[in-house]
Amino acid sequence: MSWHILPPDSALSTAIQHKIDTKTKPVGALGELEALARQVALVQQTLTPQLRQPHLVVFAADHGIAEAGVSQYPPEVTHQMVRNFAAGGAAINVFCRQNGLALTIVDAGVRGSFADLPAVRDQKIAEGTRNFLHAPAMTPTQCQEALQRGARLVDELHEGGCNVLGLGEMGIGNTSSAAVLLHQLTGRPLAECVGRGTGLDAAGLARKLATLTRAVAAHPAVGLEPLAVLATFGGFEIAQLCGAMLRAAEHRMLLLIDGFIASAALLVAARLAPAVLAYCVFCHESDELGHRLLLAELGGRPLLRLGLRLGEGTGCALAYPLVQAAVGFLNEMASFESAGVPDDSGA
Amino acid sequence: MSWHILPPDSALSTAIQHKIDTKTKPVGALGELEALARQVALVQQTLTPQLRQPHLVVFAADHGIAEAGVSQYPPEVTHQMVRNFAAGGAAINVFCRQNGLALTIVDAGVRGSFADLPAVRDQKIAEGTRNFLHAPAMTPTQCQEALQRGARLVDELHEGGCNVLGLGEMGIGNTSSAAVLLHQLTGRPLAECVGRGTGLDAAGLARKLATLTRAVAAHPAVGLEPLAVLATFGGFEIAQLCGAMLRAAEHRMLLLIDGFIASAALLVAARLAPAVLAYCVFCHESDELGHRLLLAELGGRPLLRLGLRLGEGTGCALAYPLVQAAVGFLNEMASFESAGVPDDSGA
Repeated sequence: MSWHILPPDSALSTAIQHKIDTKTKPVGALGELEALARQVALVQQTLTPQLRQPHLVVFAADHGIAEAGVSQYPPEVTHQMVRNFAAGGAAINVFCRQNGLALTIVDAGVRGSFADLPAVRDQKIAEGTRNFLHAPAMTPTQCQEALQRGARLVDELHEGGCNVLGLGEMGIGNTSSAAVLLHQLTGRPLAECVGRGTGLDAAGLARKLATLTRAVAAHPAVGLEPLAVLATFGGFEIAQLCGAMLRAAEHRMLLLIDGFIASAALLVAARLAPAVLAYCVFCHESDELGHRLLLAELGGRPLLRLGLRLGEGTGCALAYPLVQAAVGFLNEMASFESAGVPDDSGA
Repeated sequence: MSWHILPPDSALSTAIQHKIDTKTKPVGALGELEALARQVALVQQTLTPQLRQPHLVVFAADHGIAEAGVSQYPPEVTHQMVRNFAAGGAAINVFCRQNGLALTIVDAGVRGSFADLPAVRDQKIAEGTRNFLHAPAMTPTQCQEALQRGARLVDELHEGGCNVLGLGEMGIGNTSSAAVLLHQLTGRPLAECVGRGTGLDAAGLARKLATLTRAVAAHPAVGLEPLAVLATFGGFEIAQLCGAMLRAAEHRMLLLIDGFIASAALLVAARLAPAVLAYCVFCHESDELGHRLLLAELGGRPLLRLGLRLGEGTGCALAYPLVQAAVGFLNEMASFESAGVPDDSGA
């Protein structure tokens, strides 16, 4: 599977900057929103970008490593939270409703059946990954299938007219998976990559670090090839996220990047195709220890810093109004000329 | 004029925290949004707060000190930007439309007439303040009148059903006024309070600091009494903001605090009635030098840090969806019990 991602043509940059700088405001006065407006205009290759059919997808899956007691919550919570998503009662439901994002819930590999819930899209690879303390989390075939299932869903959304996509996840144990991916792909010490997840105390964090240290040692030959690392330590939701991100960038869609897990999926994607990063809006910096490292590694400047550590795509949904604001000022604000206001230092 | 502001009764705190902690998410996982939900619930004294008829008011006025060349822009820009607001072409118009806030534009003391623009509310105290290099910016009577005009507008909004109010400003020269208020009321060195405003270069900044140093020296007897300081160095929009803030807190409305100028108005208000602070949501930390000092002085934790330095209330309008999200998750998320999800460490 290869990915054909081109960075946006920069020929329009000067015209975009001129349009921003002649709006009725001091040059640069909208700060990070101006950088965001530039990015969206470049991604869409137009001076008048539009956000169409914004969509958030939550990929959920179970993790074999959760059996090792690396989380505050029992593994069954993944299944139960998917039911909560389907019923509309989770944080991501509230924030998507508020900010006008459509929401799709994907079973990427959760234990148990959702056949009774038509709102849950079946993209199940298996009933959870294997425990990577003892074996690679998934087979190479499963990993490829997960990438493809994530990509195909994005094809559908793109065909339906969506051009801005937020990606979230749910999976008890998945901060462990993300931490090891970060460690393995960047060489950062594991202790800097492993955090409290959903709320471990100091003793729980120490156990998690010890467990993951053993897990890494169990796969001495894994190397740096991104898909080998993903198959060994990843999760089905992380692999589907990765495929979704790569395909969305192929379609030149704007990608809203959430917290630690989604950023770990993006790290894998960026190692496969670095140009994916040009399409990414980094929505927030989470409270999970490794996320700041990941953002630095990816060159991401987060829009929000609210101490969130929930996942589900909540950071994407919360930051989306800022993306709308960036597009809105670019399209709707008067220019100095049109408003009859003298430009600066013209006095 | 005295202000009767009571801090919210804290009797509900435990019940509010219990409601937040039993939502289907790890304890604390929504970070700053949880603190915001607590605040709104306490301000409204209910477990089910509602945001009603959100409104943003922009107070505009001219400043005598602008004649001294302390701004990048000529003083006429205040008048022209008010016309731009009335025509719907400024950033604050775009962001209020996007996020569902009603917008009122107030002439608090702009030079020239807006009689041709019914959308501009006439609360003009005078055709700009006097230049405080040579005389107090306003008379004590003007200062009282400005406070009262700001307060009376809030009475009207409150009577109309509004319970959440954003406050913005426009006035060439008003970062100078705000910087001196900050210096005079806190004793911070003037050089730490004076910033680049709408975009002065290093030489412009040095001139601004020199000018304001002379201005402060010209009023050696002003002292620390907040209204004396406000009358000497303030602006009509700052005084109307101050009156509006105090009256809004009397009515137990939620107050959205914008950037440097609005925070300087709040500093005066808080010196008159410290309980006003319990009603304030600090919407952002601006790029203007003194704003961080002001936030520290007021104990404010900003929701956004986007390097904005525009004023107009833009930070309020941009942060408003986060306030909606805080209220939304408190009212709409399922609890562990209602969703059938086991609570943490129940495993």
